[in-house]
Amino acid sequence: MTDISTLGEFGLIDHLTRDFPLHHKETLLGVGDDCAVLDYHTQGDSDKRRIVTTTDMLMEGIHFDLTYTPLKHLGYKAAMVNLSDVYAMNATPRQLLVSIAFGRRTKVEHLDELYAGILIACRQHHVDLVGGDTTSSLTGMAISITCIGDADADKLTTRAGAHDTDLICVSGNLGAAYFGLQLLEREKKVWAAQQGADETHSQPDFAGKEYLIERILKPEARRDIVSALQAAGIVPTAMIDISDGLSSELMHLCKHSHTGCRIYEERIPIDYQTAATAEEFGMNVYTAALNGGEDYELLFTVPLTLHDRVVTIPDVHLIGHMTAPEQGLHLITPDGNEFALKAQGWNHLATEQPDSPTA
Amino acid sequence: MTDISTLGEFGLIDHLTRDFPLHHKETLLGVGDDCAVLDYHTQGDSDKRRIVTTTDMLMEGIHFDLTYTPLKHLGYKAAMVNLSDVYAMNATPRQLLVSIAFGRRTKVEHLDELYAGILIACRQHHVDLVGGDTTSSLTGMAISITCIGDADADKLTTRAGAHDTDLICVSGNLGAAYFGLQLLEREKKVWAAQQGADETHSQPDFAGKEYLIERILKPEARRDIVSALQAAGIVPTAMIDISDGLSSELMHLCKHSHTGCRIYEERIPIDYQTAATAEEFGMNVYTAALNGGEDYELLFTVPLTLHDRVVTIPDVHLIGHMTAPEQGLHLITPDGNEFALKAQGWNHLATEQPDSPTA
Repeated sequence: MTDISTLGEFGLIDHLTRDFPLHHKETLLGVGDDCAVLDYHTQGDSDKRRIVTTTDMLMEGIHFDLTYTPLKHLGYKAAMVNLSDVYAMNATPRQLLVSIAFGRRTKVEHLDELYAGILIACRQHHVDLVGGDTTSSLTGMAISITCIGDADADKLTTRAGAHDTDLICVSGNLGAAYFGLQLLEREKKVWAAQQGADETHSQPDFAGKEYLIERILKPEARRDIVSALQAAGIVPTAMIDISDGLSSELMHLCKHSHTGCRIYEERIPIDYQTAATAEEFGMNVYTAALNGGEDYELLFTVPLTLHDRVVTIPDVHLIGHMTAPEQGLHLITPDGNEFALKAQGWNHLATEQPDSPTA
Repeated sequence: MTDISTLGEFGLIDHLTRDFPLHHKETLLGVGDDCAVLDYHTQGDSDKRRIVTTTDMLMEGIHFDLTYTPLKHLGYKAAMVNLSDVYAMNATPRQLLVSIAFGRRTKVEHLDELYAGILIACRQHHVDLVGGDTTSSLTGMAISITCIGDADADKLTTRAGAHDTDLICVSGNLGAAYFGLQLLEREKKVWAAQQGADETHSQPDFAGKEYLIERILKPEARRDIVSALQAAGIVPTAMIDISDGLSSELMHLCKHSHTGCRIYEERIPIDYQTAATAEEFGMNVYTAALNGGEDYELLFTVPLTLHDRVVTIPDVHLIGHMTAPEQGLHLITPDGNEFALKAQGWNHLATEQPDSPTA
């Protein structure tokens, strides 16, 4: 018998789906990108829209901890994770299907909270809830969400179109969700210890770190970036959302696009709260940015010729450029040292610490 | 706090989704049928195909028991359950997304078996696996499958189109899966008792009951019925697949179509093995047909004028007819007694016996 950890999550998916043939000419892109791409139009149809679809499963104890995750936030986040995958195709989310499994002690009011969060996400992103399933669970909660969206065929952006010399861009900032999670986990341990000691419970104090808590509990899918790119007349050559850490996502882009890359450490956008908290934890903030998960920012590439246009988009940062594949994937530190990028990412399939990024 | 059992599964879905607006004109049908219906065509498009989509979540210990369910069968069945929902729209399944969560002791070979079953289902029904998710679970296995299909707009069949006097038809036979499950559960108890007594383990003997075991472990989505209807030039007025028992599904058809119904007990198709096993268990076989789950047969209505055409279709049985709504829903026994239909169905949300039909 073979341990799943020997394959890793992406290796496992490749392994399991390797024998599946694609029967339909309408299936333009199957497993292996942020979304599948489907063509439900007939030849001669002047409308060149494509359908994209993606699905994610969130398990209690693996992806979320109900001791510090309000159900409303959980519903919102579960939707955002899927919307983010659709935006990563340069597409627009349209419909959502939501399946929930829950334990015996769950009450209607708990599910109301969860769906209230999903509703807010649907409203903000103009997405229709069109189906789903509810069932009981013998153990923890499980949430499975599928999102369907569409894009003009000539704007659709996969992981596979980047070229040598393309600029590598990232939205927002990285590593914040990682430290948000560390803070919540630390407070959980403090609280558990107080329980044992029968002391008066102190409320956790996240003053000055609110942004980090918000990034882990209430991430935002970057619809604004997709809109800004469109307004600027830019179609990225490749794009992916950052759910497993910059390093892992860069490896996906380079693998699918057959390129190498060079990124510059001092160019990686880091929020002040992230930097301060990294110092408090005695950690290298760039390790968190490269390998921490759940930032849900967009990572994309544009041709060098679009440099002047892309730098005008607010909250988009140039962090490096693509290279020929034989040059490999490298991080350049401020002192000029080069390190090969390792894609550890969030390994939800690891046997030891399923919820911790391997920093 | 409100117990979920006070709402029931369908009441819960209605409750949770009541505030969700539909934003897009392309969302033709949302929550509440076997599938959602989407229109991804522009006005003036001569192609009148519609997209349908459905999702199901299967939880270990609720929907399946790995002590007697081979993983290959489980994968096959998980796919079939979704394909069945697409056929119930008179549509053709095209793409599948599969998410799996699994415990620490799961090995690659286990998942290979599961996916081998999914692959057989995909091949038989010409469906493309286009996406999914894999993750670990702290507890049991969870499987979430989403299926996308299409149908000509003028052939699409919801639950809502039946009229007074329409004939009620059912494919195959009912109650077999229920007794298949009872047999497996009985053997599981025998085996557990032998474990305790340290006796030599006897192999379960299902001789003469193979069909019942097959119906619960390896159900078949009725693509053949949808094809036969099309070949006969019949578009049902309403259709649903029988996953929760005939009684529950009839109530859905009548509620959505604003009709009543009269069905005749002796017309309900029962296999010989089902009847023999019902007698062995000392149970009324029609109770199992009405309230047992997982038959995955199709229940549909056709106009009275199509009587002569529908009776020529192999394996389709007329069991009654629709009535005006004020006449209610009734089962007529051979001696002429009338009973109001109760839709217990499989209540996966019940607090006592989540996996047992309430007979």
